[in-house]
Amino acid sequence: MTDTGDKLTHLDDSGAANMVDVSDKASTSRIAVAGGSVTMRPETLELIKSGNAKKGDVIGIARIAGIMAAKKTHELIPLCHPLMLSKVSIDIEPDDNLPGLRVRATTKVSGQTGVEMEALTACSLACLTIYDMAKAVDRGMVIGDIRLLEKAGGKSGHWTVEDGGTGGT
Amino acid sequence: MTDTGDKLTHLDDSGAANMVDVSDKASTSRIAVAGGSVTMRPETLELIKSGNAKKGDVIGIARIAGIMAAKKTHELIPLCHPLMLSKVSIDIEPDDNLPGLRVRATTKVSGQTGVEMEALTACSLACLTIYDMAKAVDRGMVIGDIRLLEKAGGKSGHWTVEDGGTGGT
Amino acid sequence: MTDTGDKLTHLDDSGAANMVDVSDKASTSRIAVAGGSVTMRPETLELIKSGNAKKGDVIGIARIAGIMAAKKTHELIPLCHPLMLSKVSIDIEPDDNLPGLRVRATTKVSGQTGVEMEALTACSLACLTIYDMAKAVDRGMVIGDIRLLEKAGGKSGHWTVEDGGTGGT
Amino acid sequence: MTDTGDKLTHLDDSGAANMVDVSDKASTSRIAVAGGSVTMRPETLELIKSGNAKKGDVIGIARIAGIMAAKKTHELIPLCHPLMLSKVSIDIEPDDNLPGLRVRATTKVSGQTGVEMEALTACSLACLTIYDMAKAVDRGMVIGDIRLLEKAGGKSGHWTVEDGGTGGT
Amino acid sequence: MTDTGDKLTHLDDSGAANMVDVSDKASTSRIAVAGGSVTMRPETLELIKSGNAKKGDVIGIARIAGIMAAKKTHELIPLCHPLMLSKVSIDIEPDDNLPGLRVRATTKVSGQTGVEMEALTACSLACLTIYDMAKAVDRGMVIGDIRLLEKAGGKSGHWTVEDGGTGGT
Amino acid sequence: MTDTGDKLTHLDDSGAANMVDVSDKASTSRIAVAGGSVTMRPETLELIKSGNAKKGDVIGIARIAGIMAAKKTHELIPLCHPLMLSKVSIDIEPDDNLPGLRVRATTKVSGQTGVEMEALTACSLACLTIYDMAKAVDRGMVIGDIRLLEKAGGKSGHWTVEDGGTGGT
Repeated sequence: MTDTGDKLTHLDDSGAANMVDVSDKASTSRIAVAGGSVTMRPETLELIKSGNAKKGDVIGIARIAGIMAAKKTHELIPLCHPLMLSKVSIDIEPDDNLPGLRVRATTKVSGQTGVEMEALTACSLACLTIYDMAKAVDRGMVIGDIRLLEKAGGKSGHWTVEDGGTGGT
Repeated sequence: MTDTGDKLTHLDDSGAANMVDVSDKASTSRIAVAGGSVTMRPETLELIKSGNAKKGDVIGIARIAGIMAAKKTHELIPLCHPLMLSKVSIDIEPDDNLPGLRVRATTKVSGQTGVEMEALTACSLACLTIYDMAKAVDRGMVIGDIRLLEKAGGKSGHWTVEDGGTGGT
Repeated sequence: MTDTGDKLTHLDDSGAANMVDVSDKASTSRIAVAGGSVTMRPETLELIKSGNAKKGDVIGIARIAGIMAAKKTHELIPLCHPLMLSKVSIDIEPDDNLPGLRVRATTKVSGQTGVEMEALTACSLACLTIYDMAKAVDRGMVIGDIRLLEKAGGKSGHWTVEDGGTGGT
Repeated sequence: MTDTGDKLTHLDDSGAANMVDVSDKASTSRIAVAGGSVTMRPETLELIKSGNAKKGDVIGIARIAGIMAAKKTHELIPLCHPLMLSKVSIDIEPDDNLPGLRVRATTKVSGQTGVEMEALTACSLACLTIYDMAKAVDRGMVIGDIRLLEKAGGKSGHWTVEDGGTGGT
Repeated sequence: MTDTGDKLTHLDDSGAANMVDVSDKASTSRIAVAGGSVTMRPETLELIKSGNAKKGDVIGIARIAGIMAAKKTHELIPLCHPLMLSKVSIDIEPDDNLPGLRVRATTKVSGQTGVEMEALTACSLACLTIYDMAKAVDRGMVIGDIRLLEKAGGKSGHWTVEDGGTGGT
Repeated sequence: MTDTGDKLTHLDDSGAANMVDVSDKASTSRIAVAGGSVTMRPETLELIKSGNAKKGDVIGIARIAGIMAAKKTHELIPLCHPLMLSKVSIDIEPDDNLPGLRVRATTKVSGQTGVEMEALTACSLACLTIYDMAKAVDRGMVIGDIRLLEKAGGKSGHWTVEDGGTGGT
């Protein structure tokens, strides 16, 4: 538990939503890692993998979509602060056991707010782009497991998903 | 299976990605429904529910974020066509069994391309906004089950998620 | 009174906000005219007028800002439908009696929804841009009288501001 | 009067418009407060108030629209610098004497330029959103009194609207 | 020469700029092709070609940037009408004689205005992205030859770059 | 040659594209100057010049388009970092020898990455806007010579276009 205790920080005492004041927070180096997956039929995964063997396009385009989405996070999430991302990277790996693709996004900033929303948004848009590019052959794909995996920097210190079950802030 | 067979339609014969030509497709009324969920700790759900009893903000803001995101889909998904959405609606319901919130987005257009990416994008951003507003108390929330539930209009006719497992186009 | 009677159309029966379904509305030619003003000190107006005598910049840039804002209306107003504006024009005239500048925006579309929000948004951003460009010399300027002046097309027929006081829809 | 004297700072000596160089300005904490109003028929105000008693939507959505618009200010006002807002809050209160709604926006940044355009833009878009949501019942509403109320930080020091009439910078 | 004669159509009789009224123009199928190039040192071209042999990234990402820019044309060019692109494709080919890369963009719409600005914007942004990705090894690259190659549909009929020298409308 | 040697810095060791980590780079004052041109028929240039004598619109609007585009660079170039531009200025001059218009953009930032892409993007969009505004009378115009002219700040020190031919980083 951090000092935010059990309050939804975007709501003020009257319950009205606002973009909270972060001007007194320290500007520190902050990093976040988020993950997600797109589950699909095995044939769909094969098609993407063979496509990638040739030109790399589905995975390459999903990576770009995720990076560009990270930069748009504050336009998409109403109460997110704008921030100057210093790094965004996206890894997308096939996983035959899903079967499907696993996405992992890492974001970094030197600033007054965390970058977990940027990492989660990057993940989500990379997954949606994979869906878009493969939907002609597999409309039943499912995007899931979008979650924060790790967070460092800021007052709440280092957090990993293993800590999440016990209270989570 | 539709006539698109087993091809990733955004890639041309050389494997290069392009925004496909839809100018010969009929302009018909098209609708899509997508769903998703945010799983959280029971206390987090209670907090959102009580907050909503007072002011409705978490759910209300997530709904707006989803609607606004639907209108931005073609800016976020690289190969999506722009289109003139005629309707977007978002339903968000608490589900104590998750525990968490279930999101459902419906999009409608009269046009030459389907609106499933708009519905899926609306769902994803509504979920991400819920995460953002509750993350101060529960960093371990998981966004999942983002999937197409129903689709009507266009050459491929009516499709529901029940059809998805058997081939899915 | 139109057939919408006394309901806020963006809210459904439960009071939840959604982008309403316009797919059954006729696609007709629609036009809207909105007005607004920026009141300032006489010296400020003189400065703008003399600047414009030379290069036209304050008024010229405010006009461009208004036109570009009209095209962004659906990104700014949460429940506005996207639409394909077929015309936007902005007139800005000095008025020594204010003293200040009067702005008038005209928007046109062939579509299923009205264009009054586009005209009002264009007006507002033209006024804000005037404020921005003159604020170094006059921080006390006031933007006012942003209102719909005329509207034609669509089911509710022709409306002018003279009708507004008596019920207004 | 500040040292900018009687010049329109966005125009250079030849009268050409440019985004002025702020790189030598000190990075200080800056705050701005802007106000505005939407005047409407008493019945319209009642409808919004009763709607808000139930779900809060008109005011809640206008607040979100204002916050999101503040973050887009530099995209809307041609010569505004981008900046990293550290806070945006919007208050919207019914006023039976107008009759209508009063909007007040507060913005904060630590940076090299003021945040008054962000506060004014937030106010304007909150007002436009109120108009949009109530226009089905009252097309004659008027947005007015958009003005800077207070400004602190930066070289020009503390300013309030009471100072405005006497020279205004 | 078309009927627009020798007038700059975006300016009205007083010389003021506006987004011209296209509502009386026929909605026809329109297509445009634009070209451009990035000239670079031979070693830079080799590096891009070998990189592409492995993963295709420079060319693949530039293609995506061009497609996404086409969709943003009306936000970037102040007086362009928004339109519903039905197709965007980008071809990028190495040319050892430049040495460098040649870009060609094709855009298509069914609408009331031409799509040449969309094709030209797509070309320009694809070239700028190539520059961005290779600038660490070659800051002296030059983007050039951005021009319309072909245009069909609309009142002015079919036009190719061969016609351009003789008057060009 | 800088220490980046002969690598395309946006690609990692596996060739995958990412937004590189700049968090260890020093935040210094950086400036970039880029140039470009639009070549046109002499009559077109005369028309623009006489138009500008009256109202300044073609050149004035192109300048605004370039400034606004500079602020959007990171949304347009997939792997560009967002940054807080402290200055953008655009000069546009007629050149009878081209014949046409020459564009020059200067951008400035205090930050961890260079601003050359912002200057190049500003130039390109100013040129595209000139094309748009004059295309009704001259479809054969050519945009060219978009190049970096000067760059200062950052580890690689001062660079001018005269250095470009010899290695260029």
